[in-house]
Amino acid sequence: MSNKIRLGILGGGGDSLIGVLHRVAANMFDKYQIIGGCFNPDPKQNKDFADQIGVNASRVYDTFEIMISEEMNLPENQRIQAVSVLTPNFLHYPMAKKLLENGFHVICEKPLTTSHEEALDLQKIQKEKGTSFAVTYTYTGYPIIRQMKDMIKNGVIGNIQKVDMQYYQGWINPIIHDKSQRNSVWRLDPKKAGISSCIGDIGTHAYHMLEYLTDMKVDKVLSDLNHLYSDNELDIDGTVLIRFSDYSKGVIRASQIATGEENNLTVAIYGDKGGFRWEQENPNYLYYLTNDKPLQVLKPGNPYLSEFSLQDTKLPAGHPEGIFDSMGNIYNGVAREINGEDNFKGSYPTLDEGVRGMKFIEKVVESNAKGNIWLSL
Amino acid sequence: MSNKIRLGILGGGGDSLIGVLHRVAANMFDKYQIIGGCFNPDPKQNKDFADQIGVNASRVYDTFEIMISEEMNLPENQRIQAVSVLTPNFLHYPMAKKLLENGFHVICEKPLTTSHEEALDLQKIQKEKGTSFAVTYTYTGYPIIRQMKDMIKNGVIGNIQKVDMQYYQGWINPIIHDKSQRNSVWRLDPKKAGISSCIGDIGTHAYHMLEYLTDMKVDKVLSDLNHLYSDNELDIDGTVLIRFSDYSKGVIRASQIATGEENNLTVAIYGDKGGFRWEQENPNYLYYLTNDKPLQVLKPGNPYLSEFSLQDTKLPAGHPEGIFDSMGNIYNGVAREINGEDNFKGSYPTLDEGVRGMKFIEKVVESNAKGNIWLSL
Amino acid sequence: MSNKIRLGILGGGGDSLIGVLHRVAANMFDKYQIIGGCFNPDPKQNKDFADQIGVNASRVYDTFEIMISEEMNLPENQRIQAVSVLTPNFLHYPMAKKLLENGFHVICEKPLTTSHEEALDLQKIQKEKGTSFAVTYTYTGYPIIRQMKDMIKNGVIGNIQKVDMQYYQGWINPIIHDKSQRNSVWRLDPKKAGISSCIGDIGTHAYHMLEYLTDMKVDKVLSDLNHLYSDNELDIDGTVLIRFSDYSKGVIRASQIATGEENNLTVAIYGDKGGFRWEQENPNYLYYLTNDKPLQVLKPGNPYLSEFSLQDTKLPAGHPEGIFDSMGNIYNGVAREINGEDNFKGSYPTLDEGVRGMKFIEKVVESNAKGNIWLSL
Amino acid sequence: MSNKIRLGILGGGGDSLIGVLHRVAANMFDKYQIIGGCFNPDPKQNKDFADQIGVNASRVYDTFEIMISEEMNLPENQRIQAVSVLTPNFLHYPMAKKLLENGFHVICEKPLTTSHEEALDLQKIQKEKGTSFAVTYTYTGYPIIRQMKDMIKNGVIGNIQKVDMQYYQGWINPIIHDKSQRNSVWRLDPKKAGISSCIGDIGTHAYHMLEYLTDMKVDKVLSDLNHLYSDNELDIDGTVLIRFSDYSKGVIRASQIATGEENNLTVAIYGDKGGFRWEQENPNYLYYLTNDKPLQVLKPGNPYLSEFSLQDTKLPAGHPEGIFDSMGNIYNGVAREINGEDNFKGSYPTLDEGVRGMKFIEKVVESNAKGNIWLSL
Repeated sequence: MSNKIRLGILGGGGDSLIGVLHRVAANMFDKYQIIGGCFNPDPKQNKDFADQIGVNASRVYDTFEIMISEEMNLPENQRIQAVSVLTPNFLHYPMAKKLLENGFHVICEKPLTTSHEEALDLQKIQKEKGTSFAVTYTYTGYPIIRQMKDMIKNGVIGNIQKVDMQYYQGWINPIIHDKSQRNSVWRLDPKKAGISSCIGDIGTHAYHMLEYLTDMKVDKVLSDLNHLYSDNELDIDGTVLIRFSDYSKGVIRASQIATGEENNLTVAIYGDKGGFRWEQENPNYLYYLTNDKPLQVLKPGNPYLSEFSLQDTKLPAGHPEGIFDSMGNIYNGVAREINGEDNFKGSYPTLDEGVRGMKFIEKVVESNAKGNIWLSL
Repeated sequence: MSNKIRLGILGGGGDSLIGVLHRVAANMFDKYQIIGGCFNPDPKQNKDFADQIGVNASRVYDTFEIMISEEMNLPENQRIQAVSVLTPNFLHYPMAKKLLENGFHVICEKPLTTSHEEALDLQKIQKEKGTSFAVTYTYTGYPIIRQMKDMIKNGVIGNIQKVDMQYYQGWINPIIHDKSQRNSVWRLDPKKAGISSCIGDIGTHAYHMLEYLTDMKVDKVLSDLNHLYSDNELDIDGTVLIRFSDYSKGVIRASQIATGEENNLTVAIYGDKGGFRWEQENPNYLYYLTNDKPLQVLKPGNPYLSEFSLQDTKLPAGHPEGIFDSMGNIYNGVAREINGEDNFKGSYPTLDEGVRGMKFIEKVVESNAKGNIWLSL
Repeated sequence: MSNKIRLGILGGGGDSLIGVLHRVAANMFDKYQIIGGCFNPDPKQNKDFADQIGVNASRVYDTFEIMISEEMNLPENQRIQAVSVLTPNFLHYPMAKKLLENGFHVICEKPLTTSHEEALDLQKIQKEKGTSFAVTYTYTGYPIIRQMKDMIKNGVIGNIQKVDMQYYQGWINPIIHDKSQRNSVWRLDPKKAGISSCIGDIGTHAYHMLEYLTDMKVDKVLSDLNHLYSDNELDIDGTVLIRFSDYSKGVIRASQIATGEENNLTVAIYGDKGGFRWEQENPNYLYYLTNDKPLQVLKPGNPYLSEFSLQDTKLPAGHPEGIFDSMGNIYNGVAREINGEDNFKGSYPTLDEGVRGMKFIEKVVESNAKGNIWLSL
Repeated sequence: MSNKIRLGILGGGGDSLIGVLHRVAANMFDKYQIIGGCFNPDPKQNKDFADQIGVNASRVYDTFEIMISEEMNLPENQRIQAVSVLTPNFLHYPMAKKLLENGFHVICEKPLTTSHEEALDLQKIQKEKGTSFAVTYTYTGYPIIRQMKDMIKNGVIGNIQKVDMQYYQGWINPIIHDKSQRNSVWRLDPKKAGISSCIGDIGTHAYHMLEYLTDMKVDKVLSDLNHLYSDNELDIDGTVLIRFSDYSKGVIRASQIATGEENNLTVAIYGDKGGFRWEQENPNYLYYLTNDKPLQVLKPGNPYLSEFSLQDTKLPAGHPEGIFDSMGNIYNGVAREINGEDNFKGSYPTLDEGVRGMKFIEKVVESNAKGNIWLSL
């Protein structure tokens, strides 16, 4: 029997894009074996899909509750060790909770839960159980992002004085400008999508990336959100002023109505000694600026990079890494931890980071609702 | 005698960078002849410089007051017609005022004045006198900026729903982090520099460009400025939330502490049908985005551009235009007006636009001082 | 039992980069199951590696000959169906030959063989057996490359009049300039590396890409190669003039001494109606040029793309695809053929294309050796 | 009287683009005064144009012969000192010859003459007379080109082992594919345009830039030109293999049928220690590559640049320089020499360089005509 980590999956069946992303990522470093799960609420489709991806019928379960109880009956060395949670958002919390309580490691899609309160509850249980728990802020896995994190930690750009994060998309345009559509899609229905559309879906990525890269905590936020139509209940655009302190400030900008933008997440972080710029759609270029030297462009796989950055690059420099590589590196980080290998701090986004993401969403929405006032985070 | 416009210049002598910029721009279309001025407060240097640039000694004056009175004594067909004001900021107002009162056309560097009040006064006099008055927001002269303005006016991107302007520089870093320097340079001395450093010097460019391009007026602002040190009295960084209306919003971001940035003015404007992106450091590329077609990249000098954009391009497509071309086009716009030629609206930034720029600076500083509140513009 | 294609692998064990690339690619669309192989000539390492990647010990073989004979003894519905050949170049021919003779589908790394003659032999056998045979010119799998191929086929750029392919690397610099190294590395030893270094390793990629994209055959070549030192027997740089006809010409440029270049494969193809540019290091951008319209930039995953291009994109536009995706798409193409699904012509590079690649290498080396003369291809 | 250099101009009247370019360039550094010339063969248009650009009627001449004889009658301190020759190509030789014989400095557009023989004749006269003579290979004036030249001279990239120059345009497409047009335009008429279209017009720019930057002489050329139609007598596309020596090689590529390209001149030069890349359409970015460090991007106006590069930059870093600046810097180089100021070698392209350019054109055409053979240069 292989000594790979035995992975279960909840959700991600059929044509699910997120399902492909996680399976490819899990397979990327030969460290996981997908051996069971509940991929689809429909029993027939569930079985068929399992067959299609090569999972043995004996480990395909009708519900996550059954999966957990059946797996707990197996000997520990056959039991699923880690579970990827890829279901609709509102299911993350009950699934993750039960998984944690039974000692499974969890890899959960974002947003972690539908409220900060639920997130705090998961955090409490994890602390008791000591399992690994990753929240897949996918973009943090790019090798050059890890290089940036390392260089900031090592003081290369000095004290951070100015930050500017952007996440612009335009996909909601055809929906938002059509009254019947905007009043019917689940994405804009507070009952299904929660308290926020833009900030919850993408603003939180930008926010997480900022704290991930800087290892600093945002102290306060003041937001101005845009709903575009009075009959639309959720934000689909927003700007958030942020402060680390009175003298270290910046902004997070997110939009789903930036017409023509695809997935334009950008980073700009400036310290007193240097600065960085990065764009997700062109993820293999890190722009490093200083006061008095030429701009430098760092690319993955080169010997001048840090060990953390190089660790996950599999091909020589000049072979572009994409979003699958980024997610693969996160899975590798979790695997290294589960396997007890040496592991870099930051090799995957933790539950604590996911909890903080939920708080960010709540505070941003609250600041806007209260008339654009400062709130502590 | 040539039928060029007789141009006088105040300031811009010696090694003045702004002086070179204006002279080259004035010469670019063979429409101006520099025939007099007061280039330097020192009489000897004034004469020497005039000689160096080929201005006849008889039209070199010790002060602007003398220049005006002497020129008024000349027959109208010999008299200086237009005057470029390139002196330190606090002199713009008295010079421009007297020039206007005597019927000269004025081309004035920005910021127009040191207060909104002074600016309003100039506006009043100009209305009475009917002379031309340009405020040299230099970046508006790029041919591709004029193309963007035309396309927005023609509805190509539809109703504007999201705007995002940036002006990032890093040059103040070596000064701001050195206590003795930051307490001594005139740039950070409120007595010499006025009420703002970053917003006054560059934020105002971004703001003007936004209204210039969209032909819309910002309704409200809420700002968060950064002074970086408690002993520094002026802002050197800031983010300004802006609203055209409750459903058309955006942000203006400006910084002098964005380490390593040179002169990074960017435009991003999104309507319900399309969007534009542009970067000043790479001014010959206009990125046009839509919901459902490939990104398009427009470049100067091509037949697919508007007449306003093409008018000022002098060489075939593929010959890069720079900042001198941009300023040259503004001078050309003023010349066309003075000469009574057909002229496009927007061919140069007007006094009214300069007045509004002063108001913007004052309101942004006030919003920050009052605790980041919304103020009407 | 899963209905995935049963895949065997020869080579690619241990830390092999190419091994990772093929395994990830095979797993990407859930269409292959790696069930056996001979990964390593050392029996112990072979077993250990198989265990590590989850291959059952019963299907791990000491040699490729044993693998073939044992697998042929298995019932057809259990037998390995397709085999990836990832061994050193000189083993491609004997392995592929025997695999073909026994009816296995083959996915073979490039260069196909060590001589054009061997390649022709494989071609003959395949014609008799009718199996699928892919040669992994990896870069052809990018979605946007497939879009370019489609648009050229559909006449979008008209008749091709000018082509320009580049493949520049700089990695051999530290080796070539060190006498002891250049006289010892296998890469520059004709006995081990064959008749060419630069043209054989990377020039052939550029050449293949050209014929792949245009569906045209190069008629003649004239080459000028550079060995850089008189004691170096193999080319490490070269320029190849090419002609499709007397009025349709171009150039293929390749180098391993383009200092600082990583993996800079570029395409420029111009027809009488339009042109294309593309860069491998930034593989998600296709630049489409015309005589009279703005440059267009096409990106993967957008509805304006062809079905062939869209087929293999798994995530929404704006999620960068990398080299793994490109190889994954080639594996998907082979799988579709094996499974009898609808398949686009060009979904993977065929044996015939690999044969032609071998001829190109031989003719280019011959042209140079004979004093830079034209040779028919 | 101003101590500016007294400049005369031959040609460049009316709407001439090249006329604007030279006038703006001459005015850029306040070092020239345009005081006379013959701008147009039509006497009335000549006078009108002179008036328009502010040239006194007394110094406007009906022919260049009259200009020279009349000016020679003036006292030396009033006489025109330098003359810009902007006429059609076939007039360059007789004009430049007579100007040289009478001791005028000359600034001549390229191509210098219509044959290498004429060029050699000018060279002989200049040697006797000792006047300054610039050939306006305009693109050499960009500040960042001068930086590249300096760094190569200082050994930063080591010994040059590989060069690759490109000059691609697409403008001739609508002409070449229309039989009546291609048989009638002067550009493709050997009697009017000389022996070459593409190589003569733009290939020569790429060739000159190469020798200008490297300070090396191309030893041999082998060319393959494309006429596209059998009834077209002149090349409109070509690739030229070049050798500095048996171990230092490269290629010059030029085209007027690269559909959609505007003015895409590029440089790639690789030494054993480093490399450079540059693109004319984006002239403010110099890409510096090494074996083992991140790519660096150098931009004009920064303190890390050489004195030669910084000398002509007039505004702070981040203010884009364009083609006018490039030509202005060449005029400045000539002026410094005439004025006896300290001057950098390479501050303008010399007559010797123009002579060599003529030889290049002749040899490239000859190589192609003789069946693509090597010819010494």
